[in-house]
Amino acid sequence: MSKININEKFGLFDEQWTPKIIAESNGQLVKIAKGSGELVWHKHDNEDELFVVFKGQLTLKLQAGNIVLNPGEMYIVPKGIEHCPVAKPDTHFMMIEPASTAHTGEIETTITISQDKQEWI
Amino acid sequence: MSKININEKFGLFDEQWTPKIIAESNGQLVKIAKGSGELVWHKHDNEDELFVVFKGQLTLKLQAGNIVLNPGEMYIVPKGIEHCPVAKPDTHFMMIEPASTAHTGEIETTITISQDKQEWI
Repeated sequence: MSKININEKFGLFDEQWTPKIIAESNGQLVKIAKGSGELVWHKHDNEDELFVVFKGQLTLKLQAGNIVLNPGEMYIVPKGIEHCPVAKPDTHFMMIEPASTAHTGEIETTITISQDKQEWI
Repeated sequence: MSKININEKFGLFDEQWTPKIIAESNGQLVKIAKGSGELVWHKHDNEDELFVVFKGQLTLKLQAGNIVLNPGEMYIVPKGIEHCPVAKPDTHFMMIEPASTAHTGEIETTITISQDKQEWI
């Protein structure tokens, strides 16, 4: 593999809430996404989900309260915990999660992208 | 858990080549480290090792050639591949790897920190 420049990868797409896969390590996928507005409440029963913000602001709404992530900040939503991501316009973030992780958990929305349709860039 | 500010965590220690654990996700540990100069050639037979650079420059010497990582760049050393990390002074980087990963693989050096002595910060 070649090295990966994370910001260059963010320049390759414009879709919102559409994770792009940039790497795989130990069965986990490294994904980047852009977001704006609210996604949907959902959970992943078997997978922890790691978020790192690169630009903008990502709020992870949890039943226990909101986690507000600015650039350089990270959070791990533990398996089984309901969450709803909300982003300021043009927020850029990374997720690291097992290849089995469904985009919006058990919830199907018009913006849900099934794992097998998530694109490598 | 609380959110993690990655740069604040880098401010909490000064040791070189001494990984500090900042999070766990799906059995993998998120570690940060500072490096300067050369570590040692080694490999991890069963674990891929993900590197992301935050400051300075980290070169991963491989038998196939050198991977030179600047801030915002990442690389995954696949399991079984020999590598030797070399860093410019005060280089800051993150590693994500399974909890089973030995610091310098099968090689024991004076700076090797066994997994059970790697500190959470």
